[in-house]
Amino acid sequence: MTANSITLLGAGTIGTSWAALFLSRGADVTVFDPNHTALMMSKEQVKIAWQDLLALNPTIGEPAWDRLKLTTDMRQACNKPDWVQENAPDRLDLKQEVLGQAERYLPFDTPIASSTTALLATDIQNAMRHPERFLVGHPFNPPHLIPLVEIVCGNKTGTAMLERAKAFYERYGKEVVIAKREAVGHIANRLNAALYREVVHMVESGIATVEDIDRAVKHGPGLRWAFLGPNMVYHLGGGDGGYSQYLEHLGPSQEARWLDLGTATLDKEIKAELVSQFEKSLNGETMSDLRKHRDSALIGLLKLKKQLIEDHSL
Amino acid sequence: MTANSITLLGAGTIGTSWAALFLSRGADVTVFDPNHTALMMSKEQVKIAWQDLLALNPTIGEPAWDRLKLTTDMRQACNKPDWVQENAPDRLDLKQEVLGQAERYLPFDTPIASSTTALLATDIQNAMRHPERFLVGHPFNPPHLIPLVEIVCGNKTGTAMLERAKAFYERYGKEVVIAKREAVGHIANRLNAALYREVVHMVESGIATVEDIDRAVKHGPGLRWAFLGPNMVYHLGGGDGGYSQYLEHLGPSQEARWLDLGTATLDKEIKAELVSQFEKSLNGETMSDLRKHRDSALIGLLKLKKQLIEDHSL
Repeated sequence: MTANSITLLGAGTIGTSWAALFLSRGADVTVFDPNHTALMMSKEQVKIAWQDLLALNPTIGEPAWDRLKLTTDMRQACNKPDWVQENAPDRLDLKQEVLGQAERYLPFDTPIASSTTALLATDIQNAMRHPERFLVGHPFNPPHLIPLVEIVCGNKTGTAMLERAKAFYERYGKEVVIAKREAVGHIANRLNAALYREVVHMVESGIATVEDIDRAVKHGPGLRWAFLGPNMVYHLGGGDGGYSQYLEHLGPSQEARWLDLGTATLDKEIKAELVSQFEKSLNGETMSDLRKHRDSALIGLLKLKKQLIEDHSL
Repeated sequence: MTANSITLLGAGTIGTSWAALFLSRGADVTVFDPNHTALMMSKEQVKIAWQDLLALNPTIGEPAWDRLKLTTDMRQACNKPDWVQENAPDRLDLKQEVLGQAERYLPFDTPIASSTTALLATDIQNAMRHPERFLVGHPFNPPHLIPLVEIVCGNKTGTAMLERAKAFYERYGKEVVIAKREAVGHIANRLNAALYREVVHMVESGIATVEDIDRAVKHGPGLRWAFLGPNMVYHLGGGDGGYSQYLEHLGPSQEARWLDLGTATLDKEIKAELVSQFEKSLNGETMSDLRKHRDSALIGLLKLKKQLIEDHSL
């Protein structure tokens, strides 16, 4: 396979994390940002992400800096790349503006994916000249570590784009899932939101503290979710009859819980309560400590999963 | 500290897993079950769980079989233990019957905890002669591996019981969280239920397949939940302003998702669809393969977390 040339629109956290990942797997990477300072800082960000990538796979060596171009010039950024990944701030007007500029210089059939978390593909592509080349390819933060990419097509996305995007992301080691239709939050952030709504409800209604809820997740169900999705968890919890037996025997318990779950609104009072309880639960750990811990835990876990797969134990 | 003598009522999956854990940490364990065959099989179950415990901590050596007693005689089971953990089938009438029998022989102040998943402490203790000694101490399956224990007091639970239970479970290496009030599903299973309701809703409304939902969790947010609770995840996702900044900037996105989440009912059609999609996603793995994979993944993860804590990286 020949090297891909990939253009990243936006040199923020997501753009630079993508840049490090693509660079580590042999692509030619161009990062565009209208802000010169952000652009100049992005090389440092790539270096930081590189340490994680190196910890995961020591064979990648040093970054091939000659393969990384940083530019404030959209024309230069759009000089026939194989793939464009847009990472502008998550606002419809800003995304549409950046894509409008890019389309001026790109060949009409260059694929463009958006890293959007909160927007729908159809809304973004509505303002495009060639909307059929566009879809959402939503990574999880940080993209150079978390394998998941969610692909979502808009109403005007061309029929070949889905398979093309899947092949593209898989080439870079990503685990691709497909939203069969557009929905707010795609797939994984809907699950995040469902979980978090009940977190807020439990704090608000005095069932548990922020600290105990976080501890319950990481010492309980969170341990399984690192390896097993919720359907598989219940398959394994259903006895020898598996998922089907689970649903027959424990479906009614599940429904009883659903009836008791709450809703929530993030008003001023509950936001203050969440933050106050959360801060009390910190043991003087700084943001920088916590980030380091998160990243070394993630790297350790990704290495463990790789090892288990090599041992045919996952 | 002198050894505890612990009585387990019920020799099912939960009871025997507790037995292995307590035995591995030096307790004298008595397992009661009215079913002689179940009781005789429980020794084999303890042996299987022991292999996991040995993998986690090779210093435990062989089980001290002389410290494990199996009995169908409730009087013998209730001969002044320090702690009683009840693991009868999760039905109110059955639990009340077993506890009624046990109370005939136990000193009035011996603490009794129930492993119940679906019942409330107040409902169970309502039929007890000495309800003040009773609370819920809910483990996650399998209790010998998953650290979480949820403590829930009922209306009649004595004031000293909560601290006593916390000290007891912590002595056996458990991570204890406290439900400040009784609620269906305690804490963690409410979060499980909130997540799963949206899983069912997404399958039902054609947003994603069972397979892609499971893959989204284990390659995405599930990787973080093994180490970080949902509040901490957002604290780290909020930029330098942390949780407070997250709620200010991304609270509205969160609320927009909440409005779009669905409800579900486990009717015959959706149950068939869930099972059919799930079975298609299996690559011929048997239940026994899957269980082995789950347990080796869990053991690997628990060892990783222990190592990270020793390295001050968690």
